[in-house]
Amino acid sequence: MCRWIAYSGSPVNLEDLLYKPERSLVMQSKYSRLGVETINGDGFGVGWYSTVPRPGLFHSTDPAWNDRNLRELAALAWSGRVFAHIRASTGTAVQQTNCHPFRHDRWLWMHNGLINDFLKLKRDLTLAVDPALFPLIQGSTDSELFFYLALTLGLEKDPPGAVARAVGLIENIGRQHGVEFPLQMTVAVTDGETTWAFRYSSEGRSRSLFRSTDISALRALHPTHELLQGLSGDARLVVSEPLGDLEGAWQEVPEASYLVVHGAQAEVAPFAPIPV
Amino acid sequence: MCRWIAYSGSPVNLEDLLYKPERSLVMQSKYSRLGVETINGDGFGVGWYSTVPRPGLFHSTDPAWNDRNLRELAALAWSGRVFAHIRASTGTAVQQTNCHPFRHDRWLWMHNGLINDFLKLKRDLTLAVDPALFPLIQGSTDSELFFYLALTLGLEKDPPGAVARAVGLIENIGRQHGVEFPLQMTVAVTDGETTWAFRYSSEGRSRSLFRSTDISALRALHPTHELLQGLSGDARLVVSEPLGDLEGAWQEVPEASYLVVHGAQAEVAPFAPIPV
Amino acid sequence: MCRWIAYSGSPVNLEDLLYKPERSLVMQSKYSRLGVETINGDGFGVGWYSTVPRPGLFHSTDPAWNDRNLRELAALAWSGRVFAHIRASTGTAVQQTNCHPFRHDRWLWMHNGLINDFLKLKRDLTLAVDPALFPLIQGSTDSELFFYLALTLGLEKDPPGAVARAVGLIENIGRQHGVEFPLQMTVAVTDGETTWAFRYSSEGRSRSLFRSTDISALRALHPTHELLQGLSGDARLVVSEPLGDLEGAWQEVPEASYLVVHGAQAEVAPFAPIPV
Amino acid sequence: MCRWIAYSGSPVNLEDLLYKPERSLVMQSKYSRLGVETINGDGFGVGWYSTVPRPGLFHSTDPAWNDRNLRELAALAWSGRVFAHIRASTGTAVQQTNCHPFRHDRWLWMHNGLINDFLKLKRDLTLAVDPALFPLIQGSTDSELFFYLALTLGLEKDPPGAVARAVGLIENIGRQHGVEFPLQMTVAVTDGETTWAFRYSSEGRSRSLFRSTDISALRALHPTHELLQGLSGDARLVVSEPLGDLEGAWQEVPEASYLVVHGAQAEVAPFAPIPV
Repeated sequence: MCRWIAYSGSPVNLEDLLYKPERSLVMQSKYSRLGVETINGDGFGVGWYSTVPRPGLFHSTDPAWNDRNLRELAALAWSGRVFAHIRASTGTAVQQTNCHPFRHDRWLWMHNGLINDFLKLKRDLTLAVDPALFPLIQGSTDSELFFYLALTLGLEKDPPGAVARAVGLIENIGRQHGVEFPLQMTVAVTDGETTWAFRYSSEGRSRSLFRSTDISALRALHPTHELLQGLSGDARLVVSEPLGDLEGAWQEVPEASYLVVHGAQAEVAPFAPIPV
Repeated sequence: MCRWIAYSGSPVNLEDLLYKPERSLVMQSKYSRLGVETINGDGFGVGWYSTVPRPGLFHSTDPAWNDRNLRELAALAWSGRVFAHIRASTGTAVQQTNCHPFRHDRWLWMHNGLINDFLKLKRDLTLAVDPALFPLIQGSTDSELFFYLALTLGLEKDPPGAVARAVGLIENIGRQHGVEFPLQMTVAVTDGETTWAFRYSSEGRSRSLFRSTDISALRALHPTHELLQGLSGDARLVVSEPLGDLEGAWQEVPEASYLVVHGAQAEVAPFAPIPV
Repeated sequence: MCRWIAYSGSPVNLEDLLYKPERSLVMQSKYSRLGVETINGDGFGVGWYSTVPRPGLFHSTDPAWNDRNLRELAALAWSGRVFAHIRASTGTAVQQTNCHPFRHDRWLWMHNGLINDFLKLKRDLTLAVDPALFPLIQGSTDSELFFYLALTLGLEKDPPGAVARAVGLIENIGRQHGVEFPLQMTVAVTDGETTWAFRYSSEGRSRSLFRSTDISALRALHPTHELLQGLSGDARLVVSEPLGDLEGAWQEVPEASYLVVHGAQAEVAPFAPIPV
Repeated sequence: MCRWIAYSGSPVNLEDLLYKPERSLVMQSKYSRLGVETINGDGFGVGWYSTVPRPGLFHSTDPAWNDRNLRELAALAWSGRVFAHIRASTGTAVQQTNCHPFRHDRWLWMHNGLINDFLKLKRDLTLAVDPALFPLIQGSTDSELFFYLALTLGLEKDPPGAVARAVGLIENIGRQHGVEFPLQMTVAVTDGETTWAFRYSSEGRSRSLFRSTDISALRALHPTHELLQGLSGDARLVVSEPLGDLEGAWQEVPEASYLVVHGAQAEVAPFAPIPV
């Protein structure tokens, strides 16, 4: 479906982050190893935080490997918190308003997976969105609608709880319509200071999710690795698939759990839908 | 807002129709005379009928004056029924799914104008769409939603009645939200055999709408005019603004009325919303 | 590098040709089997002949699998001679002017392969183009320049001779610059009535090229195959890779040879560069 | 033809620079007052310097007024030296490689105007480019070729001399081909530290060019003007047309002259072609 990475730590150059790793996200747009699709060529997006609370967004319908503006932007931009996403559409149109990450005020959201039988469920899910938020929906994807459901159910106050309720709602509506496994997801969401990353699916066979291990330990292990030396001790990556084969660098996030990354802290907790 | 033309008659070459008139639609994309905007550069679309009931669509986000593929397609395509539209966005995204004409089975729909305070009314209007049709909405415009309301209210059986009911519904919902003049419109709709064109606005000051006069009479008047000689006697054009200054060629469609074009017949009737 | 197909025969619907075969060209844009790249997502193009001598062109920088306008156009267009090409760039920009097929008057040209070290040779090759043709070059690819060299060297009068001279010239200039194997190619060219297809490379290891066998014989072999029944007896396809696994349907065009397709005739002859 | 602005001074936010002035460059893309065309909707580009010598480039074929990514980028980017350009094509394709500013190493170049009868002169002009630079030409415009001629003739060592020689060369080649007035230009070029801006045309009726007056004096005159208060004393703008009606803010650069802006210094000198 899609691939994504979420970075937090000392400001990193976006070209270093998106292009230079051995199996960088841009490289994965052509040759993903762990995705359902090897190609994620249906547009991409980058969200990055700078000196103002509202993050910037760059959305394109070109395949990431072809976008000259992404390369230019990446060469000059530095950021301490970056979300990047490459898309393999599950049916909705390839257009900028369908590119992740999605933004609401200072929040960013991106999703790998899908709501099964989305067109069957779409109206009921749309009705469940807070009427005050409804007009802000810009695109036509399941992923953006999922974001607005989470916002409706309290994302800005209690992200894990709101995501759990949104998942509960989707599963409930899905099952009312006879959909056996309504949701497949890895999701990342941030307010610019903390990142939450979720791995869950109704059928218990979720898409892959990995996090980087402690950079200091890793640095000790690989003292000549250039990219590692440039990162701060609290730098953390959460990714759909590892950016390289560096031994000891990646830990899988377990099925039905979520990760909270705040500064150098990264804690895993179990995740379960809350019926709504 | 936008400009459009609706052609019916003997098969015409699309290049002759869209590029060659003195003030052709493609020329109007840069230099409209009667529009609210002189520029209609926010994408365009063409729908044309061929040998199958379902019309073809060509939608582009480029300004029409720049699109090389439109020029190529137009040079080779002939059709006896063509809808073409150039867009000046009233706020929604410039993307292919927001380009007119919109299609449902064998039906095409295009709109010049807007639903005022659309974001305020959007949710209630969306709820009024038949749940079976709801998942077919592809874009985010007021114009496409208006089409789905008309479909919900019987467009395929009684076009003038369904449009009158859809307008009544929009005005009713608009006024519930305190919008004084909810709708401004010229609309063209066709099933491939008959074309209906409406001119109406809540405030009684509608966008311009013109229809071509009887081609045979016109031909007699201008015996050396090349384009005229190529058209069949039953050829008819309905347009946002005249395609040239040819004397006697254009008649204004009156405020609050609609036109039915079927073969050589073109009849005007008064139009009034039906409260829903 | 790229994939292409060249069709001639009774008018065929472009959707049947480009989308419906088991391993259609549009499918190959994502999953090519015999190409150097599995993905040909750097734009595409279709050229087709209709009622006028000059063929139409549709060029897009979107991956073919994503282009809605291609799907629409294909559904309504019929043609007795079609060139279609999906591109995997070897370095030059992804832009419409770099999409194949290239056109000059009634001629179409498309190429799979590359001129090695093209940037080193580009100036000398450019100087070799007829000054009267030079201003007509629109893009920046090796493939289009190769076309203009062939035009300079007599393509319109003697296609096999002109291509042999253009190859000779490229190899000569290449070797002057120390390039061991200057050219890799399969090329298709047509004037709308005859198609010539070439397979050659300086190193003698050329990209794959196949032609369809006699349709009548094939039809006898597979009496229930739907697509086959719709094709005329003189229908011929020349392709970079087979469109399916139908037994007996495809014959490889040998290394260093060319094929001339005219009506039901399809003859293979040896190909060798002519030094210029 | 086109419109452009060149900024130097303390780091300015690109949104403040490109969107906020009363008659901002983005606004001019729809409604230019002094241009040959009121609309400059054939793509645009921004070049900006950051912490590395090589400037970043953002090129788009969308009209500037519609580009969401430009708006996002502009909101987060700050730069002390910015070139921005909106294009009205004089015939060459609308594609990213034809968007200004053009870049060579640390240099940026942008042009308003045209080489008359460009296609007639193109080959001879192309031959005059240094063979080592020739392969770096990416697009098909007269403006980029003019840049490469200036680079060939010493731009990096002596900008005014190199531009004078390039103009002399163009006029010479033009007149050999019977073109009476070969060149029309305002050009801006920078190495990231100094900006040179030229106003010249073969017929002595050049496109408009303005520079901002001394900011400190202007600030004294308009003590409540917000944008002015944010700019450093050495901030300087050179523009195709004024960004607003602020009295005392703009001085015309005279016909046949050039301006050198370095820090707070801005000196005007006469410009004349040097025959080559």
